[in-house]
Amino acid sequence: MGKLYVIGIGPGGIEHMSIRAKEAIEESEIIVGYTRYIEFIKPILDGKKIFSTGMMGEEERCKEALRLCKDSTVAVISTGDSGIYGMAGLILELRKDEEVEVIPGITASSAAGSIVGAPLMHDSCNISLSDLMTPYELIKKRVRLAAEGDFVISLYNPRSKGRSEYLKENLDSIREYRTGDTPVALVKNALRDGQEVTISTLDTFDYEKADMLSIVIIGNSQSYIKDGYFVTPRGYKL
Amino acid sequence: MGKLYVIGIGPGGIEHMSIRAKEAIEESEIIVGYTRYIEFIKPILDGKKIFSTGMMGEEERCKEALRLCKDSTVAVISTGDSGIYGMAGLILELRKDEEVEVIPGITASSAAGSIVGAPLMHDSCNISLSDLMTPYELIKKRVRLAAEGDFVISLYNPRSKGRSEYLKENLDSIREYRTGDTPVALVKNALRDGQEVTISTLDTFDYEKADMLSIVIIGNSQSYIKDGYFVTPRGYKL
Repeated sequence: MGKLYVIGIGPGGIEHMSIRAKEAIEESEIIVGYTRYIEFIKPILDGKKIFSTGMMGEEERCKEALRLCKDSTVAVISTGDSGIYGMAGLILELRKDEEVEVIPGITASSAAGSIVGAPLMHDSCNISLSDLMTPYELIKKRVRLAAEGDFVISLYNPRSKGRSEYLKENLDSIREYRTGDTPVALVKNALRDGQEVTISTLDTFDYEKADMLSIVIIGNSQSYIKDGYFVTPRGYKL
Repeated sequence: MGKLYVIGIGPGGIEHMSIRAKEAIEESEIIVGYTRYIEFIKPILDGKKIFSTGMMGEEERCKEALRLCKDSTVAVISTGDSGIYGMAGLILELRKDEEVEVIPGITASSAAGSIVGAPLMHDSCNISLSDLMTPYELIKKRVRLAAEGDFVISLYNPRSKGRSEYLKENLDSIREYRTGDTPVALVKNALRDGQEVTISTLDTFDYEKADMLSIVIIGNSQSYIKDGYFVTPRGYKL
Protein backbone atom coordinates (compact mmCIF):
# COMPACT_ATOMS: atom_id res chain seq x y z
CA MET A 1 0.00 0.00 0.00
CA GLY A 2 1.41 3.37 -1.03
CA LYS A 3 0.95 6.89 0.18
CA LEU A 4 0.49 10.33 -1.35
CA TYR A 5 2.23 13.43 -0.08
CA VAL A 6 0.97 16.80 -1.31
CA ILE A 7 3.92 19.08 -0.74
CA GLY A 8 4.35 22.84 -0.80
CA ILE A 9 8.01 23.36 -1.68
CA GLY A 10 7.97 27.08 -0.82
CA PRO A 11 9.27 29.75 -3.21
CA GLY A 12 11.43 27.46 -5.33
CA GLY A 13 14.96 26.83 -4.10
CA ILE A 14 15.75 24.06 -1.63
CA GLU A 15 16.70 26.45 1.17
CA HIS A 16 13.25 27.87 1.88
CA MET A 17 11.62 24.44 1.80
CA SER A 18 10.68 22.98 5.18
CA ILE A 19 12.77 20.17 6.57
CA ARG A 20 9.66 17.97 6.57
CA ALA A 21 8.94 18.74 2.88
CA LYS A 22 12.48 17.83 1.89
CA GLU A 23 12.36 14.57 3.85
CA ALA A 24 9.03 13.60 2.30
CA ILE A 25 10.40 14.22 -1.20
CA GLU A 26 13.48 12.15 -0.38
CA GLU A 27 11.24 9.37 0.90
CA SER A 28 9.06 9.38 -2.25
CA GLU A 29 9.69 7.06 -5.18
CA ILE A 30 7.72 9.09 -7.72
CA ILE A 31 7.48 12.89 -8.01
CA VAL A 32 4.55 14.49 -9.82
CA GLY A 33 4.50 18.16 -10.76
CA TYR A 34 4.49 20.98 -13.27
CA THR A 35 7.65 20.70 -15.39
CA ARG A 36 9.00 24.09 -14.33
CA TYR A 37 8.63 23.35 -10.60
CA ILE A 38 10.27 19.93 -10.95
CA GLU A 39 13.34 21.81 -12.23
CA PHE A 40 13.49 23.85 -9.00
CA ILE A 41 14.12 20.81 -6.84
CA LYS A 42 16.27 18.79 -9.26
CA PRO A 43 19.20 18.55 -6.79
CA ILE A 44 17.19 16.21 -4.54
CA LEU A 45 15.50 14.10 -7.26
CA ASP A 46 18.34 11.72 -8.14
CA GLY A 47 17.08 8.29 -9.13
CA LYS A 48 13.38 9.09 -8.71
CA LYS A 49 10.69 8.59 -11.33
CA ILE A 50 9.16 11.86 -12.52
CA PHE A 51 5.70 12.49 -13.93
CA SER A 52 5.47 16.07 -15.12
CA THR A 53 3.15 17.97 -17.44
CA GLY A 54 2.90 21.57 -18.56
CA MET A 55 0.59 24.33 -17.35
CA MET A 56 -3.12 23.45 -17.26
CA GLY A 57 -2.27 19.78 -16.78
CA GLU A 58 -3.29 19.87 -13.12
CA GLU A 59 -6.17 17.44 -13.34
CA GLU A 60 -4.14 14.91 -15.35
CA ARG A 61 -1.27 15.13 -12.83
CA CYS A 62 -3.56 14.66 -9.84
CA LYS A 63 -5.32 11.65 -11.36
CA GLU A 64 -1.99 10.06 -12.22
CA ALA A 65 -0.66 10.71 -8.70
CA LEU A 66 -3.75 9.12 -7.14
CA ARG A 67 -3.34 6.10 -9.42
CA LEU A 68 0.40 5.73 -8.75
CA CYS A 69 0.14 6.08 -4.97
CA LYS A 70 -1.77 2.81 -4.65
CA ASP A 71 1.53 0.94 -4.98
CA SER A 72 4.22 3.57 -4.36
CA THR A 73 5.10 6.53 -2.19
CA VAL A 74 4.32 9.52 -4.37
CA ALA A 75 4.85 13.27 -3.88
CA VAL A 76 2.76 15.84 -5.73
CA ILE A 77 4.56 19.16 -5.51
CA SER A 78 3.33 22.76 -5.70
CA THR A 79 5.39 25.89 -5.24
CA GLY A 80 4.51 27.98 -2.21
CA ASP A 81 1.94 26.30 0.03
CA SER A 82 0.24 23.28 -1.55
CA GLY A 83 -2.99 24.42 0.14
CA ILE A 84 -2.96 28.01 -1.22
CA TYR A 85 -3.79 28.01 -4.95
CA GLY A 86 -1.79 24.72 -5.01
CA MET A 87 -2.59 21.07 -5.64
CA ALA A 88 -3.99 20.00 -2.24
CA GLY A 89 -7.56 20.99 -3.09
CA LEU A 90 -7.77 19.13 -6.39
CA ILE A 91 -6.15 16.01 -4.89
CA LEU A 92 -8.69 15.94 -2.05
CA GLU A 93 -11.57 16.64 -4.46
CA LEU A 94 -10.53 13.65 -6.59
CA ARG A 95 -9.43 11.37 -3.74
CA LYS A 96 -11.34 8.15 -3.12
CA ASP A 97 -9.67 6.11 -0.36
CA GLU A 98 -5.98 6.88 -0.88
CA GLU A 99 -3.85 7.86 2.12
CA VAL A 100 -3.04 11.57 1.65
CA GLU A 101 -0.85 13.86 3.78
CA VAL A 102 -0.69 17.59 3.05
CA ILE A 103 2.64 19.23 3.93
CA PRO A 104 2.52 23.04 4.08
CA GLY A 105 5.09 25.46 2.66
CA ILE A 106 5.91 29.14 2.61
CA THR A 107 3.35 30.82 0.34
CA ALA A 108 4.35 33.45 -2.24
CA SER A 109 2.99 36.43 -0.29
CA SER A 110 5.10 35.45 2.76
CA ALA A 111 8.18 35.07 0.56
CA ALA A 112 7.61 38.37 -1.24
CA GLY A 113 6.80 40.14 2.02
CA SER A 114 10.04 39.03 3.67
CA ILE A 115 12.07 40.46 0.80
CA VAL A 116 10.58 43.95 0.93
CA GLY A 117 10.33 44.23 4.73
CA ALA A 118 7.20 43.58 6.78
CA PRO A 119 4.15 44.54 4.71
CA LEU A 120 1.87 41.75 6.05
CA MET A 121 2.10 42.66 9.75
CA HIS A 122 -1.60 43.43 10.04
CA ASP A 123 -4.81 41.85 8.71
CA SER A 124 -4.31 40.89 5.10
CA CYS A 125 -5.80 38.92 2.25
CA ASN A 126 -4.73 36.91 -0.77
CA ILE A 127 -6.68 37.41 -4.01
CA SER A 128 -5.89 35.76 -7.34
CA LEU A 129 -6.60 37.92 -10.39
CA SER A 130 -6.85 34.84 -12.61
CA ASP A 131 -10.38 34.52 -13.99
CA LEU A 132 -9.85 31.07 -15.52
CA MET A 133 -11.96 29.52 -12.78
CA THR A 134 -13.44 32.54 -10.96
CA PRO A 135 -15.87 35.07 -12.45
CA TYR A 136 -14.12 38.42 -12.89
CA GLU A 137 -17.06 40.20 -11.22
CA LEU A 138 -16.39 38.22 -8.02
CA ILE A 139 -12.67 39.04 -8.17
CA LYS A 140 -13.41 42.77 -8.52
CA LYS A 141 -15.93 42.61 -5.69
CA ARG A 142 -13.38 41.00 -3.39
CA VAL A 143 -10.72 43.59 -4.21
CA ARG A 144 -13.21 46.42 -3.52
CA LEU A 145 -14.32 44.96 -0.19
CA ALA A 146 -10.71 44.26 0.86
CA ALA A 147 -9.85 47.88 0.01
CA GLU A 148 -12.84 49.16 1.98
CA GLY A 149 -11.79 46.99 4.95
CA ASP A 150 -8.26 48.44 4.86
CA PHE A 151 -6.70 45.01 4.46
CA VAL A 152 -3.15 44.66 3.18
CA ILE A 153 -3.78 42.99 -0.20
CA SER A 154 -1.55 40.41 -1.89
CA LEU A 155 -2.47 39.83 -5.54
CA TYR A 156 -1.52 36.40 -6.92
CA ASN A 157 -1.36 35.87 -10.71
CA PRO A 158 -1.54 39.65 -11.12
CA ARG A 159 -1.18 39.88 -14.89
CA SER A 160 -1.16 37.67 -17.96
CA LYS A 161 -1.34 38.47 -21.65
CA GLY A 162 -5.01 37.59 -21.85
CA ARG A 163 -6.00 40.06 -19.12
CA SER A 164 -3.39 42.78 -19.12
CA GLU A 165 -5.85 45.46 -17.90
CA TYR A 166 -7.17 43.65 -14.79
CA LEU A 167 -4.32 44.77 -12.58
CA LYS A 168 -4.76 48.45 -13.46
CA GLU A 169 -8.54 48.23 -13.04
CA ASN A 170 -8.21 46.70 -9.60
CA LEU A 171 -5.52 49.08 -8.38
CA ASP A 172 -7.77 51.94 -9.56
CA SER A 173 -10.53 50.44 -7.45
CA ILE A 174 -8.19 50.27 -4.41
CA ARG A 175 -7.27 53.94 -5.08
CA GLU A 176 -10.82 54.92 -4.16
CA TYR A 177 -10.06 53.89 -0.57
CA ARG A 178 -6.31 54.64 -0.24
CA THR A 179 -4.07 57.62 -0.91
CA GLY A 180 -1.71 57.71 -3.88
CA ASP A 181 1.35 57.35 -1.64
CA THR A 182 0.24 53.91 -0.40
CA PRO A 183 3.22 51.54 -0.83
CA VAL A 184 3.02 48.86 -3.50
CA ALA A 185 5.59 46.08 -3.85
CA LEU A 186 6.06 44.09 -7.02
CA VAL A 187 8.17 40.99 -6.49
CA LYS A 188 8.94 38.67 -9.38
CA ASN A 189 10.42 35.21 -8.68
CA ALA A 190 10.47 35.81 -4.92
CA LEU A 191 13.40 34.03 -3.21
CA ARG A 192 14.47 32.13 -6.31
CA ASP A 193 16.63 32.67 -9.39
CA GLY A 194 15.60 35.73 -11.35
CA GLN A 195 14.26 37.65 -8.35
CA GLU A 196 13.28 41.26 -9.17
CA VAL A 197 11.89 43.71 -6.65
CA THR A 198 10.25 47.08 -7.22
CA ILE A 199 8.83 49.17 -4.39
CA SER A 200 6.63 52.03 -5.54
CA THR A 201 3.27 53.59 -4.66
CA LEU A 202 -0.24 53.49 -6.08
CA ASP A 203 0.70 56.71 -7.94
CA THR A 204 3.96 55.48 -9.44
CA PHE A 205 3.33 51.74 -9.94
CA ASP A 206 4.37 50.38 -13.36
CA TYR A 207 1.77 47.82 -14.50
CA GLU A 208 3.85 46.63 -17.40
CA LYS A 209 6.40 44.99 -15.12
CA ALA A 210 3.90 42.55 -13.57
CA ASP A 211 3.41 39.03 -14.89
CA MET A 212 2.28 35.57 -13.77
CA LEU A 213 5.51 34.98 -11.84
CA SER A 214 4.94 38.11 -9.74
CA ILE A 215 3.18 38.95 -6.52
CA VAL A 216 1.86 42.48 -5.95
CA ILE A 217 1.41 43.64 -2.34
CA ILE A 218 -0.58 46.81 -1.61
CA GLY A 219 -0.21 48.32 1.86
CA ASN A 220 -3.05 49.39 4.16
CA SER A 221 -3.69 53.02 5.16
CA GLN A 222 -0.95 52.84 7.83
CA SER A 223 1.80 51.26 5.70
CA TYR A 224 4.88 53.31 4.89
CA ILE A 225 8.35 53.09 3.40
CA LYS A 226 11.31 53.50 5.74
CA ASP A 227 14.91 53.29 4.48
CA GLY A 228 13.74 51.18 1.58
CA TYR A 229 11.71 48.77 3.74
CA PHE A 230 7.92 48.40 3.27
CA VAL A 231 6.45 48.34 6.78
CA THR A 232 2.86 47.93 7.98
CA PRO A 233 2.78 48.81 11.68
CA ARG A 234 1.22 46.30 14.05
CA GLY A 235 0.06 49.13 16.30
CA TYR A 236 2.73 49.43 19.00
CA LYS A 237 2.92 52.94 20.44
CA LEU A 238 6.62 53.73 20.04
CA MET B 1 29.95 44.44 12.66
CA GLY B 2 27.06 42.11 13.47
CA LYS B 3 23.84 41.21 11.78
CA LEU B 4 20.23 40.67 12.77
CA TYR B 5 18.08 37.84 11.45
CA VAL B 6 14.33 38.05 12.01
CA ILE B 7 13.22 34.46 11.68
CA GLY B 8 9.84 32.81 11.36
CA ILE B 9 10.33 29.33 12.80
CA GLY B 10 6.99 28.02 11.48
CA PRO B 11 4.49 26.21 13.71
CA GLY B 12 6.92 25.20 16.43
CA GLY B 13 8.84 21.98 15.94
CA ILE B 14 12.10 21.85 14.01
CA GLU B 15 10.63 19.82 11.14
CA HIS B 16 8.36 22.48 9.66
CA MET B 17 11.05 25.17 9.89
CA SER B 18 12.71 26.11 6.60
CA ILE B 19 16.23 24.92 5.97
CA ARG B 20 17.32 28.57 5.71
CA ALA B 21 15.73 29.44 9.07
CA LYS B 22 17.51 26.55 10.77
CA GLU B 23 20.86 27.52 9.25
CA ALA B 24 20.46 31.16 10.30
CA ILE B 25 19.70 30.10 13.88
CA GLU B 26 22.74 27.81 13.88
CA GLU B 27 24.87 30.69 12.58
CA SER B 28 23.63 33.12 15.27
CA GLU B 29 25.48 33.67 18.53
CA ILE B 30 22.52 35.13 20.40
CA ILE B 31 18.84 34.12 20.19
CA VAL B 32 16.12 36.55 21.24
CA GLY B 33 12.50 35.50 21.70
CA TYR B 34 9.43 34.88 23.79
CA THR B 35 10.31 32.27 26.45
CA ARG B 36 7.75 29.74 25.23
CA TYR B 37 8.98 29.88 21.62
CA ILE B 38 12.62 29.51 22.66
CA GLU B 39 11.59 26.18 24.23
CA PHE B 40 10.28 24.96 20.84
CA ILE B 41 13.73 25.12 19.22
CA LYS B 42 15.85 24.10 22.21
CA PRO B 43 17.41 21.13 20.34
CA ILE B 44 19.36 23.53 18.08
CA LEU B 45 20.33 26.14 20.69
CA ASP B 46 23.28 24.38 22.36
CA GLY B 47 25.92 26.84 23.52
CA LYS B 48 24.09 29.97 22.37
CA LYS B 49 23.27 32.99 24.51
CA ILE B 50 19.53 33.46 25.00
CA PHE B 51 17.62 36.66 25.70
CA SER B 52 14.00 35.83 26.38
CA THR B 53 11.09 37.65 28.00
CA GLY B 54 7.45 36.82 28.61
CA MET B 55 4.38 37.91 26.66
CA MET B 56 4.06 41.66 26.04
CA GLY B 57 7.83 42.02 26.19
CA GLU B 58 8.08 42.49 22.40
CA GLU B 59 9.41 46.02 22.44
CA GLU B 60 12.06 45.22 25.04
CA ARG B 61 13.17 42.16 23.07
CA CYS B 62 13.42 44.06 19.81
CA LYS B 63 15.43 46.91 21.36
CA GLU B 64 17.80 44.44 22.98
CA ALA B 65 18.21 42.54 19.71
CA LEU B 66 19.01 45.76 17.82
CA ARG B 67 21.57 46.68 20.50
CA LEU B 68 23.20 43.23 20.55
CA CYS B 69 23.45 42.89 16.77
CA LYS B 70 25.97 45.73 16.54
CA ASP B 71 28.69 43.30 17.67
CA SER B 72 27.17 39.84 17.19
CA THR B 73 25.05 37.75 14.87
CA VAL B 74 21.63 37.76 16.49
CA ALA B 75 18.39 35.93 15.64
CA VAL B 76 15.01 37.25 16.76
CA ILE B 77 12.51 34.44 16.45
CA SER B 78 8.74 34.40 15.98
CA THR B 79 6.52 31.38 15.49
CA GLY B 80 4.83 31.12 12.12
CA ASP B 81 5.99 33.80 9.69
CA SER B 82 8.00 36.59 11.30
CA GLY B 83 6.23 39.02 8.95
CA ILE B 84 2.66 37.96 9.83
CA TYR B 85 1.74 39.21 13.33
CA GLY B 86 5.41 38.45 14.17
CA MET B 87 8.48 40.50 15.09
CA ALA B 88 9.63 41.74 11.66
CA GLY B 89 7.46 44.85 11.73
CA LEU B 90 8.55 46.07 15.15
CA ILE B 91 12.22 45.41 14.35
CA LEU B 92 11.99 47.46 11.15
CA GLU B 93 10.02 50.22 12.89
CA LEU B 94 12.76 50.51 15.55
CA ARG B 95 15.74 49.89 13.24
CA LYS B 96 18.28 52.69 12.71
CA ASP B 97 21.18 51.45 10.56
CA GLU B 98 21.52 47.82 11.60
CA GLU B 99 21.77 45.11 8.93
CA VAL B 100 18.49 43.18 9.06
CA GLU B 101 17.40 40.10 7.09
CA VAL B 102 13.84 38.80 7.37
CA ILE B 103 13.49 35.02 6.88
CA PRO B 104 9.93 33.85 6.25
CA GLY B 105 8.22 30.82 7.77
CA ILE B 106 5.02 28.81 7.50
CA THR B 107 2.27 30.92 9.07
CA ALA B 108 -0.33 29.43 11.43
CA SER B 109 -3.20 29.47 8.92
CA SER B 110 -1.09 27.44 6.44
CA ALA B 111 -0.16 24.97 9.17
CA ALA B 112 -3.73 24.62 10.42
CA GLY B 113 -5.06 24.39 6.87
CA SER B 114 -2.73 21.53 5.97
CA ILE B 115 -3.94 19.50 8.95
CA VAL B 116 -7.65 19.71 8.11
CA GLY B 117 -7.33 19.38 4.32
CA ALA B 118 -7.33 22.28 1.85
CA PRO B 119 -9.54 25.06 3.22
CA LEU B 120 -7.41 27.94 1.85
CA MET B 121 -7.53 26.98 -1.82
CA HIS B 122 -9.36 30.13 -2.86
CA ASP B 123 -9.12 33.84 -1.92
CA SER B 124 -8.69 34.13 1.82
CA CYS B 125 -7.81 36.54 4.58
CA ASN B 126 -6.13 36.58 7.97
CA ILE B 127 -7.77 38.64 10.71
CA SER B 128 -6.57 38.87 14.32
CA LEU B 129 -9.34 39.20 16.90
CA SER B 130 -6.94 40.75 19.42
CA ASP B 131 -7.97 44.32 20.18
CA LEU B 132 -4.85 45.17 22.21
CA MET B 133 -3.57 47.32 19.33
CA THR B 134 -6.53 47.47 16.93
CA PRO B 135 -9.93 49.08 17.65
CA TYR B 136 -12.58 46.38 17.97
CA GLU B 137 -14.86 48.33 15.61
CA LEU B 138 -12.24 47.96 12.85
CA ILE B 139 -11.88 44.22 13.53
CA LYS B 140 -15.64 43.71 13.28
CA LYS B 141 -15.79 45.77 10.10
CA ARG B 142 -13.09 43.62 8.50
CA VAL B 143 -14.84 40.39 9.45
CA ARG B 144 -18.13 41.68 7.99
CA LEU B 145 -16.52 42.78 4.71
CA ALA B 146 -14.57 39.51 4.42
CA ALA B 147 -17.82 37.61 4.93
CA GLU B 148 -19.60 39.75 2.34
CA GLY B 149 -16.72 39.09 -0.12
CA ASP B 150 -17.02 35.33 0.42
CA PHE B 151 -13.38 35.07 1.51
CA VAL B 152 -12.19 32.03 3.42
CA ILE B 153 -11.42 33.61 6.82
CA SER B 154 -8.60 32.59 9.19
CA LEU B 155 -8.99 34.10 12.66
CA TYR B 156 -5.74 34.53 14.61
CA ASN B 157 -5.85 35.03 18.40
CA PRO B 158 -9.51 34.00 18.29
CA ARG B 159 -10.28 34.05 22.00
CA SER B 160 -8.75 35.16 25.29
CA LYS B 161 -10.21 35.51 28.76
CA GLY B 162 -10.57 39.26 28.42
CA ARG B 163 -12.70 39.01 25.27
CA SER B 164 -14.43 35.66 25.40
CA GLU B 165 -17.46 36.92 23.42
CA TYR B 166 -15.65 38.37 20.39
CA LEU B 167 -15.42 35.06 18.59
CA LYS B 168 -19.13 34.35 18.91
CA GLU B 169 -20.05 37.90 17.86
CA ASN B 170 -17.90 37.67 14.75
CA LEU B 171 -19.09 34.21 13.75
CA ASP B 172 -22.65 35.51 14.13
CA SER B 173 -21.73 38.32 11.77
CA ILE B 174 -20.33 35.81 9.25
CA ARG B 175 -23.58 33.82 9.61
CA GLU B 176 -25.43 36.69 7.96
CA TYR B 177 -23.61 35.87 4.70
CA ARG B 178 -23.10 32.08 4.96
CA THR B 179 -25.30 29.08 5.63
CA GLY B 180 -25.18 27.21 8.93
CA ASP B 181 -23.50 24.19 7.33
CA THR B 182 -20.40 26.22 6.35
CA PRO B 183 -17.34 24.28 7.59
CA VAL B 184 -15.36 25.70 10.50
CA ALA B 185 -12.03 24.27 11.64
CA LEU B 186 -10.57 24.90 15.06
CA VAL B 187 -6.93 23.89 15.31
CA LYS B 188 -5.04 24.29 18.57
CA ASN B 189 -1.23 23.97 18.58
CA ALA B 190 -1.11 23.26 14.84
CA LEU B 191 1.76 20.92 13.91
CA ARG B 192 3.33 20.94 17.35
CA ASP B 193 2.96 19.12 20.66
CA GLY B 194 -0.56 19.32 22.03
CA GLN B 195 -2.25 19.55 18.62
CA GLU B 196 -6.07 19.35 18.80
CA VAL B 197 -8.35 19.52 15.78
CA THR B 198 -12.11 20.00 15.62
CA ILE B 199 -14.01 20.27 12.35
CA SER B 200 -17.56 21.51 12.73
CA THR B 201 -19.91 24.03 11.08
CA LEU B 202 -21.17 27.51 11.86
CA ASP B 203 -24.21 25.80 13.45
CA THR B 204 -22.31 23.36 15.64
CA PHE B 205 -19.09 25.25 16.48
CA ASP B 206 -18.11 25.16 20.18
CA TYR B 207 -16.72 28.59 21.15
CA GLU B 208 -15.48 27.40 24.51
CA LYS B 209 -12.75 25.28 22.93
CA ALA B 210 -10.97 28.23 21.28
CA ASP B 211 -8.06 30.03 22.93
CA MET B 212 -4.99 32.11 22.07
CA LEU B 213 -3.08 29.04 20.82
CA SER B 214 -5.82 28.27 18.29
CA ILE B 215 -6.59 29.24 14.72
CA VAL B 216 -10.19 29.22 13.48
CA ILE B 217 -10.78 28.80 9.73
CA ILE B 218 -14.23 29.51 8.28
CA GLY B 219 -14.91 28.23 4.76
CA ASN B 220 -16.40 30.23 1.89
CA SER B 221 -19.81 29.50 0.34
CA GLN B 222 -18.33 26.66 -1.76
CA SER B 223 -16.37 24.88 1.00
CA TYR B 224 -17.46 21.43 2.07
CA ILE B 225 -16.43 18.44 4.17
CA LYS B 226 -15.51 15.23 2.34
CA ASP B 227 -14.42 12.10 4.22
CA GLY B 228 -13.31 14.27 7.14
CA TYR B 229 -11.32 16.70 4.96
CA PHE B 230 -12.24 20.41 4.80
CA VAL B 231 -12.01 21.38 1.13
CA THR B 232 -12.52 24.72 -0.62
CA PRO B 233 -12.73 24.03 -4.36
CA ARG B 234 -10.46 26.04 -6.64
CA GLY B 235 -13.05 25.90 -9.39
CA TYR B 236 -12.04 22.96 -11.60
CA LYS B 237 -15.00 21.43 -13.43
CA LEU B 238 -14.66 17.76 -12.48
